[in-house]
Amino acid sequence: MNLILTNARLVTMEPGALGYLPSKPCTVVIRGGYVKAILSDIHSLDTLHHDITDDVPTLDCKGKIVTPGLIDPHTHLIFAGSRAEEFENRLNGMSYEAIAQSGGGINSTVRATREATIEELVELALPRLDSLIRSGCTTIEVKSGYGLTLDDEVKMLLAAKALENHRRVNITTTLLAAHTVPSEYRDRPDDYIDYVTETIIPHVAKHQLADAVDVFCESVGFNVEQTKRVFQAAKQSGLAIKGHTEQLSNLGGSALAAELNALSVDHIEYLDDAGVDALSNSGTVATLLPGAFYFLRETQQPPIDNLRAARVPMAIGSDLNPGTSPFANLQLMMNMACTLFRLTPEESLRGVTCHAAQAIGQGRNIGQIKPGFRADLAIWDIEHPSELSYQFGMGGLSKRIVAGSVEDVL
Amino acid sequence: MNLILTNARLVTMEPGALGYLPSKPCTVVIRGGYVKAILSDIHSLDTLHHDITDDVPTLDCKGKIVTPGLIDPHTHLIFAGSRAEEFENRLNGMSYEAIAQSGGGINSTVRATREATIEELVELALPRLDSLIRSGCTTIEVKSGYGLTLDDEVKMLLAAKALENHRRVNITTTLLAAHTVPSEYRDRPDDYIDYVTETIIPHVAKHQLADAVDVFCESVGFNVEQTKRVFQAAKQSGLAIKGHTEQLSNLGGSALAAELNALSVDHIEYLDDAGVDALSNSGTVATLLPGAFYFLRETQQPPIDNLRAARVPMAIGSDLNPGTSPFANLQLMMNMACTLFRLTPEESLRGVTCHAAQAIGQGRNIGQIKPGFRADLAIWDIEHPSELSYQFGMGGLSKRIVAGSVEDVL
Ligand SMILES: [Zn+2]
Ligand SMILES: [Zn+2]
Repeated sequence: MNLILTNARLVTMEPGALGYLPSKPCTVVIRGGYVKAILSDIHSLDTLHHDITDDVPTLDCKGKIVTPGLIDPHTHLIFAGSRAEEFENRLNGMSYEAIAQSGGGINSTVRATREATIEELVELALPRLDSLIRSGCTTIEVKSGYGLTLDDEVKMLLAAKALENHRRVNITTTLLAAHTVPSEYRDRPDDYIDYVTETIIPHVAKHQLADAVDVFCESVGFNVEQTKRVFQAAKQSGLAIKGHTEQLSNLGGSALAAELNALSVDHIEYLDDAGVDALSNSGTVATLLPGAFYFLRETQQPPIDNLRAARVPMAIGSDLNPGTSPFANLQLMMNMACTLFRLTPEESLRGVTCHAAQAIGQGRNIGQIKPGFRADLAIWDIEHPSELSYQFGMGGLSKRIVAGSVEDVL
Repeated sequence: MNLILTNARLVTMEPGALGYLPSKPCTVVIRGGYVKAILSDIHSLDTLHHDITDDVPTLDCKGKIVTPGLIDPHTHLIFAGSRAEEFENRLNGMSYEAIAQSGGGINSTVRATREATIEELVELALPRLDSLIRSGCTTIEVKSGYGLTLDDEVKMLLAAKALENHRRVNITTTLLAAHTVPSEYRDRPDDYIDYVTETIIPHVAKHQLADAVDVFCESVGFNVEQTKRVFQAAKQSGLAIKGHTEQLSNLGGSALAAELNALSVDHIEYLDDAGVDALSNSGTVATLLPGAFYFLRETQQPPIDNLRAARVPMAIGSDLNPGTSPFANLQLMMNMACTLFRLTPEESLRGVTCHAAQAIGQGRNIGQIKPGFRADLAIWDIEHPSELSYQFGMGGLSKRIVAGSVEDVL
């Protein structure tokens, strides 16, 4: 799409302090869905060739703040079943063991997701997607991981990608077959890893069903050796890697991931100094998931000061999932990142724009407002970008622009 | 308004376990804005006199869950100025002292609110109000407290009440002149209390500008003796009372309030056993404000178990305000009450319906679905009321009904 924005106060999120400072009102020329030029005022349009400006629709931003469209770099958006009853039972005093014995927990989500069709999974995901979109998202990463068979993992990935046919949004997909050991492989986790590395990953790579491969590296997930096998299989198949690491304990999964040039390591509440060292200068992004931290009432803070000192880029994701982060709103995560983890509002906004882009391997395509970058933008009813992190439920989104197409907020 | 709802699965919030259990599909007859009758199915309409049912519009609820409209019993919705910069400065390491010296803190809100006109205050409040409405609210309590002169407190109360002319919502108003000592009374708090009790309260009562009087009873607010003087002046003027008590320390303000038959005591993180005893059987509601607890990273929990054991009704408010709870969403507060304070989803829903109604002195008029109660209702896209507390950003509001008038969600 071609489009010209006028009177836009840009928060470009380019590196450096200027990237966070709202610009004077600008004109943005969008051509073929990409930003072609940014001009300091509309008169400069004369300097462009007329075929770039003639017959191109213009949107007057009326001096509003324009940021890159927000990017949620970590979601489990596709699932069936509800865990509200489990939430209620736990608050009424039922133990985790009793809930698991009565069929609750992640296995209930796996069962319901296996039983659902692609169409049902899409239908169930749309309200969650709409809510993320209303919070300003233009790109959302979606993981599989509740199928745990080739067919069911593929079904989840196809459902995720199909969302692009229903809403104006970019979906990137991640294979998380190594999310948990399915019940049919109980006590045989290595056999399941064989299946993931020998059957699922090659198939998904061959048919280009996922952009990356993820592993839940944890005492209740997979150990570092198993994680390494999955990562190596992914790399052999030409897929990028990322990890759920150091969420509940410090196993060293983040260092392994960084060593293998992972896009991101996610959660990392228990990351130690050696882990921060491993991330430093690795190019791997540290993705913070404050929704799960909040919902699980975790008290171990991710090592923010050390990550900051080591200049590790920090992203923020919703981790939207039925078990530990049932929150479909990225602005809420920005507030939680500041309130619970003490990120600054600038770090928080970078966490859902330029750094989130890097965390999904698209750091040179989206997440900044810059010639050559995709014209995925959000126009806000605010005076300063700090308001996006400070408050919740007001000063919201005015319009989204996806690849140059303008969309009003529903 | 007259209206008939059919196929409504009611969560009536009447006392007892049945009040939380979704009913079989019901018909609700609304007449003159009030619930006239609840029938187990539509055929029973024959049993009603035809002038109750003839020519009355019907809304098919399609088996959706219908709850009382939510009630936010504690907000500071009316204010001017932004505190986002202060939030950002603090996260960038500026001390509270430096922020106060540079003109930040509550005094900056008082300055901006004093400078604003009624029309400006209304205009600024509408996006916050819209956000609360989208979260399901049909009644919202609004406090003054950023004016701190007779004229400016009256201006705030009039602005709050004027919101009813702009949106379909019920506003109750509370005079909070005793919010903080204004700078012109610095070091003379008792003189300010004289002014509040002798000038502001009598004027506000005479002109029926507020439904209740509130005091911030705290080491950084007013002491128990000063609080008592305000409460007594309010009662002499025929106004109900409520208190901000035991938020940061245990001064005994809650026990004082209960003794004087206050509608509610709010915050109460530091309430001790004697305070719970005082509330027990007093009729005074314990209003929990988890947004401020979260935003201030408070670690002292309100004594939920003791309140529960003493059968003290617990309400939940947003405490929407620019300094300590910039959150305009009551569903988020329901999740926080469960997640942070371990309320059950039933307690949480009672906290924003029947108990919130009691906290604003309207327990016999709103907050339950029952013949004789106002037809303020919320229709939800959920399967079970626990979802309202469990998740956020999905499974939201379908329609609101205010005094029998149906309104789609914006
Ligand atoms: Zn996750
Ligand atoms: Zn308050």
